[in-house]
Amino acid sequence: MMFDSNAVDAPRESCGVFGIFAPGEDVARLTFFALYALQHRGQESAGIAVSNGKSARLHKAMGLVSQVFTEENLAPLKGHIAIGHNRYSTKGSSRVDNAQPFLLESVLGPLGLAHNGNLVNSAELRQDLLRHGVGLMSSSDSEVIAQMLAGANGSNWIERIRLFMVRAKGAYSLTVLTHNSLYAVRDPWGIRPLCLGKFCNGWVVASESCALSTIGATFVREIEPGEIVAINDQGIESIQGAPPSRRALCSFEYIYFARPDSILQGRLIHQVRQQLGARVAAEHAVDGDWVIGIPDSATAAAIGYAHAARLPFNEGLMKNRYIGRTFIQPDDRLRQLGVALKFNAMNENLRGKRIIVVDDSIVRGHTSGPLMSLLRESGVKEIHLRVTSPPIRHPCYLGVDMATHQELIAHRLNIPQIRDFLKVDSLGYLSIEGLAATIGLPYNHICTACFSGDYPMTVNQSEGEKLAFDEAIRRGG
Amino acid sequence: MMFDSNAVDAPRESCGVFGIFAPGEDVARLTFFALYALQHRGQESAGIAVSNGKSARLHKAMGLVSQVFTEENLAPLKGHIAIGHNRYSTKGSSRVDNAQPFLLESVLGPLGLAHNGNLVNSAELRQDLLRHGVGLMSSSDSEVIAQMLAGANGSNWIERIRLFMVRAKGAYSLTVLTHNSLYAVRDPWGIRPLCLGKFCNGWVVASESCALSTIGATFVREIEPGEIVAINDQGIESIQGAPPSRRALCSFEYIYFARPDSILQGRLIHQVRQQLGARVAAEHAVDGDWVIGIPDSATAAAIGYAHAARLPFNEGLMKNRYIGRTFIQPDDRLRQLGVALKFNAMNENLRGKRIIVVDDSIVRGHTSGPLMSLLRESGVKEIHLRVTSPPIRHPCYLGVDMATHQELIAHRLNIPQIRDFLKVDSLGYLSIEGLAATIGLPYNHICTACFSGDYPMTVNQSEGEKLAFDEAIRRGG
Amino acid sequence: MMFDSNAVDAPRESCGVFGIFAPGEDVARLTFFALYALQHRGQESAGIAVSNGKSARLHKAMGLVSQVFTEENLAPLKGHIAIGHNRYSTKGSSRVDNAQPFLLESVLGPLGLAHNGNLVNSAELRQDLLRHGVGLMSSSDSEVIAQMLAGANGSNWIERIRLFMVRAKGAYSLTVLTHNSLYAVRDPWGIRPLCLGKFCNGWVVASESCALSTIGATFVREIEPGEIVAINDQGIESIQGAPPSRRALCSFEYIYFARPDSILQGRLIHQVRQQLGARVAAEHAVDGDWVIGIPDSATAAAIGYAHAARLPFNEGLMKNRYIGRTFIQPDDRLRQLGVALKFNAMNENLRGKRIIVVDDSIVRGHTSGPLMSLLRESGVKEIHLRVTSPPIRHPCYLGVDMATHQELIAHRLNIPQIRDFLKVDSLGYLSIEGLAATIGLPYNHICTACFSGDYPMTVNQSEGEKLAFDEAIRRGG
Amino acid sequence: MMFDSNAVDAPRESCGVFGIFAPGEDVARLTFFALYALQHRGQESAGIAVSNGKSARLHKAMGLVSQVFTEENLAPLKGHIAIGHNRYSTKGSSRVDNAQPFLLESVLGPLGLAHNGNLVNSAELRQDLLRHGVGLMSSSDSEVIAQMLAGANGSNWIERIRLFMVRAKGAYSLTVLTHNSLYAVRDPWGIRPLCLGKFCNGWVVASESCALSTIGATFVREIEPGEIVAINDQGIESIQGAPPSRRALCSFEYIYFARPDSILQGRLIHQVRQQLGARVAAEHAVDGDWVIGIPDSATAAAIGYAHAARLPFNEGLMKNRYIGRTFIQPDDRLRQLGVALKFNAMNENLRGKRIIVVDDSIVRGHTSGPLMSLLRESGVKEIHLRVTSPPIRHPCYLGVDMATHQELIAHRLNIPQIRDFLKVDSLGYLSIEGLAATIGLPYNHICTACFSGDYPMTVNQSEGEKLAFDEAIRRGG
Repeated sequence: MMFDSNAVDAPRESCGVFGIFAPGEDVARLTFFALYALQHRGQESAGIAVSNGKSARLHKAMGLVSQVFTEENLAPLKGHIAIGHNRYSTKGSSRVDNAQPFLLESVLGPLGLAHNGNLVNSAELRQDLLRHGVGLMSSSDSEVIAQMLAGANGSNWIERIRLFMVRAKGAYSLTVLTHNSLYAVRDPWGIRPLCLGKFCNGWVVASESCALSTIGATFVREIEPGEIVAINDQGIESIQGAPPSRRALCSFEYIYFARPDSILQGRLIHQVRQQLGARVAAEHAVDGDWVIGIPDSATAAAIGYAHAARLPFNEGLMKNRYIGRTFIQPDDRLRQLGVALKFNAMNENLRGKRIIVVDDSIVRGHTSGPLMSLLRESGVKEIHLRVTSPPIRHPCYLGVDMATHQELIAHRLNIPQIRDFLKVDSLGYLSIEGLAATIGLPYNHICTACFSGDYPMTVNQSEGEKLAFDEAIRRGG
Repeated sequence: MMFDSNAVDAPRESCGVFGIFAPGEDVARLTFFALYALQHRGQESAGIAVSNGKSARLHKAMGLVSQVFTEENLAPLKGHIAIGHNRYSTKGSSRVDNAQPFLLESVLGPLGLAHNGNLVNSAELRQDLLRHGVGLMSSSDSEVIAQMLAGANGSNWIERIRLFMVRAKGAYSLTVLTHNSLYAVRDPWGIRPLCLGKFCNGWVVASESCALSTIGATFVREIEPGEIVAINDQGIESIQGAPPSRRALCSFEYIYFARPDSILQGRLIHQVRQQLGARVAAEHAVDGDWVIGIPDSATAAAIGYAHAARLPFNEGLMKNRYIGRTFIQPDDRLRQLGVALKFNAMNENLRGKRIIVVDDSIVRGHTSGPLMSLLRESGVKEIHLRVTSPPIRHPCYLGVDMATHQELIAHRLNIPQIRDFLKVDSLGYLSIEGLAATIGLPYNHICTACFSGDYPMTVNQSEGEKLAFDEAIRRGG
Repeated sequence: MMFDSNAVDAPRESCGVFGIFAPGEDVARLTFFALYALQHRGQESAGIAVSNGKSARLHKAMGLVSQVFTEENLAPLKGHIAIGHNRYSTKGSSRVDNAQPFLLESVLGPLGLAHNGNLVNSAELRQDLLRHGVGLMSSSDSEVIAQMLAGANGSNWIERIRLFMVRAKGAYSLTVLTHNSLYAVRDPWGIRPLCLGKFCNGWVVASESCALSTIGATFVREIEPGEIVAINDQGIESIQGAPPSRRALCSFEYIYFARPDSILQGRLIHQVRQQLGARVAAEHAVDGDWVIGIPDSATAAAIGYAHAARLPFNEGLMKNRYIGRTFIQPDDRLRQLGVALKFNAMNENLRGKRIIVVDDSIVRGHTSGPLMSLLRESGVKEIHLRVTSPPIRHPCYLGVDMATHQELIAHRLNIPQIRDFLKVDSLGYLSIEGLAATIGLPYNHICTACFSGDYPMTVNQSEGEKLAFDEAIRRGG
Repeated sequence: MMFDSNAVDAPRESCGVFGIFAPGEDVARLTFFALYALQHRGQESAGIAVSNGKSARLHKAMGLVSQVFTEENLAPLKGHIAIGHNRYSTKGSSRVDNAQPFLLESVLGPLGLAHNGNLVNSAELRQDLLRHGVGLMSSSDSEVIAQMLAGANGSNWIERIRLFMVRAKGAYSLTVLTHNSLYAVRDPWGIRPLCLGKFCNGWVVASESCALSTIGATFVREIEPGEIVAINDQGIESIQGAPPSRRALCSFEYIYFARPDSILQGRLIHQVRQQLGARVAAEHAVDGDWVIGIPDSATAAAIGYAHAARLPFNEGLMKNRYIGRTFIQPDDRLRQLGVALKFNAMNENLRGKRIIVVDDSIVRGHTSGPLMSLLRESGVKEIHLRVTSPPIRHPCYLGVDMATHQELIAHRLNIPQIRDFLKVDSLGYLSIEGLAATIGLPYNHICTACFSGDYPMTVNQSEGEKLAFDEAIRRGG
């Protein structure tokens, strides 16, 4: 899959969620537009569930939002409450059974669930369900959550969500649909983002504020760690579902995942990234002729670096805009001949220059290596690579499908070795302190586990439970 | 859907099931061929689940068997145990979520299930599951059965199947797949057929023996009412899962459903149908020039009638062989102009003749009416309609999607009224006694509920439970 | 392709054509229904072209009529004149470029063409066009005809059609659409059928009368050999486009191709086939217990045989009704194990009996061999095979894709050898004289070239011209 | 179609072409990669034709390159010569019949053709073909060219191409494939780009050099106006096919069409765009806080403006990267509520700032209006819009589907009126002189007809011929 985000060696995000309660509005269509804005958080599958107050309907399928939905399949999704989900693209277990939302009939009526995150104790929770006699149809954490809610003891949904929160460890930003209510739920660590907005006479919740902007909703605030927001005909209510734990907002949302036009903790992502660029400029100063970014994710950081270093910003690499999967790949010989599908270097902007290259992260090094080669062959004089994240040395167990320990280049090599491997003149990573200071949250309010190994909760670092289904084990949700 | 079997006013069958245990064989491919032979029992969706002894895989989708499976999606279905299912075509809730087999992870490992039949107490069983905390993803009885098995108390699958059999009332012929075993299960009434065959060093079970012939397996015997057959590496074992009830084999299997080349209770269906024709000839003798059958289902009966009455058999109606769905329909004006998609009369075979027309059943009369008109317009002198089943006056609650009371023409009209409605010169239905005698089983060993209203167990004749999902209530399985 | 008609070793037909001129009617929809009735003449592709008096539109694609057309793609086909085409299924050059109708812009406006038949001098006509500077986009004879019409000298379409008829040798039943007229054209030999019908205030033409019955049109007469029928706002006109040649109606239309409910030369095909059965009964009398036909094409002949021989008719083989392509095939081992997808024998109808089996033709013997084995294994006492056509010893160059000389079993073997090859107790083919007498036309009014080698015109028996396109050479149209 | 390039009011490009002659290489796969790099020039359809020295094969279909081709359909495209084509996306006549390349059989063997451009005398050439008796199957100029070549008098392809060049007026960059040769042809005005590269032991030609970089080929030179380059086993040969006319390279290739990493007339497009930004900065100086570009096409120009004006560059608008068609659109009410699918403003980068916005062109003003509103609502203090092209006042007849006279905003309004319409504080367009000077070619070597009305050849400004086909008239190729 040629243009799989995987191919650029980036961490892969773990889904986008959305919910809307808006009597009188075409909630399915609005959810479609919101999912369209959240498409960067997952390209594998998309789905929308709608309730009309009595019963619920669902449509979900593999593919981009624009491929999954048509006027024909949107038409039956009538109602005033909807939730939606984008699932991220993977090679392994690409199955419609894992697509979300899940929609169940429960003793309390219909239950729809969309989940972003990953539970660290899902193997245990899964076994509990199985032992309780619940058969599971997919390998998804999210089905586990849905069945936990369907089978909890509470006499109403809020009680059931609370009971779930007592048991669950890990990352979960949820939108939940019942016959008459929309719930937004965020784990006590606040690991993945979730925000609240106002839309006409109704309310919306979304993984990122860019979805609010896209549909013309007004940003209200973020859902707090451990908070349940319940929305129905009686209005909106906030419940502390579980006591907040140590906060652990994923720092990669700032570095890479979130759209630049989203606002997180009161700050525009694009501006945070400019400042990450400025900070790495301060930490690893070097003289140069041009500052360029790896498109598109490092552009904001490169602009910030350039401003801070009082050097001119320019573009040096051109990225093919036509994102789409293909199974047609160059073979090794063609690769050696120089077939390079994703990026071309603009040699005339580079030749003879001392180039400062800003990238957001290096995971396995598979992409950085060829990109640095491409730049070198353009005739640059010097390459100084600056990375606006610290070295990634530990896997994520909280919803980001990065890599295993052995795959992580910074787990295997130290910084001078990485510099030599990439054949660059200098290499500077942002410090963890610099990252935290720039994000502007207390150090212990963000999750930096992939840099430090300091996970916000105990994690069982085994490779995951064995499933009865024959498929690659999926950590995502 | 122009060529939906529905369009010919026939009772609609409730699925075909298959199972195979055959180490060393390509069990998925063999299941494909078997499902192909059972295609007449269901055209809506098809699926195959396979176990390799450790884990299981599933592929299912909407459409005919030949549309659902390709070399590409068969290839990963490796193993030595497989089950397969064809689901029948409906207008209402045509959803992939209802397609079978179901494949669950359970505390005892993978559980695959394919079901033909209908439970009369499924609303109650469903509520029990919901109350126990199991969320249900579809409106299918079969998911209910799968979750009941997954959540039963028994420490092994046979115990669990037995516990299920204690609770379940109604029709179920099941094939069940676990990591290392194949089970065949038939309800204590023996309502829907299920037979056992030998294939090389392995075993097969199928709804009808025609599937055995198609793959070259040898017919061994029928699975008995209340019997569980368990097949694994240790061999084959028969367990009486529940005490047999009053036997109630569906008489419509003889009249219409089963393929003419299948064997049921030791008799070739084609021969039983010939004798049904002979019997109705005896019960309602009339003189005529030709005997014709409504193609294709009444051909055997018409041949039998002709032999018995010593009248010549011929064809009078031509049926378009290209069975396939289309949404393109003649409007009312075109219908009045004579647009008739399914049948043409062969006037030259009919003109001036006294025709004895043999049909297998009349459900709502929607098809019989236009067909009799078509025959009359051909210039026949007389039409004598003979039906090889008794008048259908009661709905089926055991897996056949016939019609409601109000839709059944014989519920609303008596025989002379039906004769007048159809504008035929005479009309003769087979008697219930004649039916039973011809089938050759004791009267109380077959189910004749749709004729007599005498259901083999108590049925709640309400229109079904309300689901949280917004879809037509489905009785089928 | 498992259920390709090819798989039953039958001659393959060369397309169905249709045309309608009917102001005020939904001509595209009516053409759809007519093509549906003609589906047996071609399953590879389907298409409809419509003119509204000013401009023309076309939709065509690979697949069955019911797969190719939807309400969505029928909707834009507005107008009062339409033509339609079904193309037959082949393995080789299955390309949408060869689908019909062809729609061209010409100096006289739009030109649509649908063709059934095959030209024996198409290589020469093709070269003429190429030399005249016309580039050809497909390997289809029909594109050649369309470009000949587009480029002819005549100042109106009738003159152009006449000029084409002077040049063309071979079989062509055409429907032609221009901006304001519908033309029906039949070659001077009258090789392939074409008939005229009345529909409300308009007119229709079709390959077979069954299409007229299906849409409620009234049969008027056949188009005569060499005749052009022109239909437009001024009414209907008949022109002798070319002097009639020796008549040469394809005898296989009677034996196999045409639908039993079509009328040809004033006689119902089903009745002709009954009489072919009666004739072979007379020519090769034998005693037996049952007469059975190979379903479905030989049923009428078997009924006729039975009546003539005063023996009972029955069914002995069951054919899977679910016609559809699949690429999934049993391998050799599975075939040896007995996997047989298309037919099952009904042993109980056969065991211990002397069976007279009626078939319509034997082309290569690939199907007859396994079928006779299937019957033998059922326990029959004797098999007497009767074929309602003479031995096929020569290829057809006029639109039927039979086989090459070497492939034809009756070219390689004499009748006793074929009997031994098929391991039947006796084998009787209909005589050519018997065929002609039964059809009821003078011997030199039908084409019997595939039996006698006596082609109605000189044919170049080479294997066809070389095309610039890399595809199997196609003779069909 | 939500993300149709149309939706951003940009001129639409008229296709990308490619050709390769490379014995021993997988030319179809290489063509795939090259078309992938040229995807920005056309997203409607894609196709590849290949010759193996004897015969040719073609695959083409609607959709993006990555959607059209699979390993399965690439596999049969074996050979050593290939051509490929991307066709641009339109609303009107989106038909596979217009997809390219065209592949014809001609008297000289196979002829494949891929065309970028538009002929101004195609109506006349079309009539000539029709009068000569050639029927045309599509509305495409390119079919006209293919049939002209197939029917020309010359005894070899070069003579035929020359005869075509005598007759044709307008823009054409062609790649032509015959059984043993590849030809590259450029019109005498050199309107659309076409360049030559070396690949291992073979040669390639492409619309833009970015395709060469992508497959690892080396740029050699541009094809000259009026030049034919012939490549075959004997090597490469350059022929002056027609005397060069006044040069008229489309200036919009520099402004908008070409990929920034392509080289045209020796200069990197990205650098030319930087200088266009610098030039408009000089022509319309204004003070401001930030320079932003409309993403992505104006980014290079905005960088250039910023450098020249010594102002900081930043991003202010975020564009949804997930390019794909959808038919799901906000209705008017949702638009008024602020549903904005393509762009979001990053208010925090804009609020209180004096913003200089750089755009490449304004065609109808449909996109610029809403974008300027979006910026104003972000709280900017001032908006100064700078456009790196002159006002577009005239339609293009040479292959760019811009708009009609009446649709062009600068045809209807003068600059102060446009400024008021867009509600910006100031508006500055680049001068025609500035454009020419920056491109660095003599004024009369580029085409500026859409700005000046000074077409490089006489054009008939009628709205196009009437076609016999009922479809929107297409000027593109």
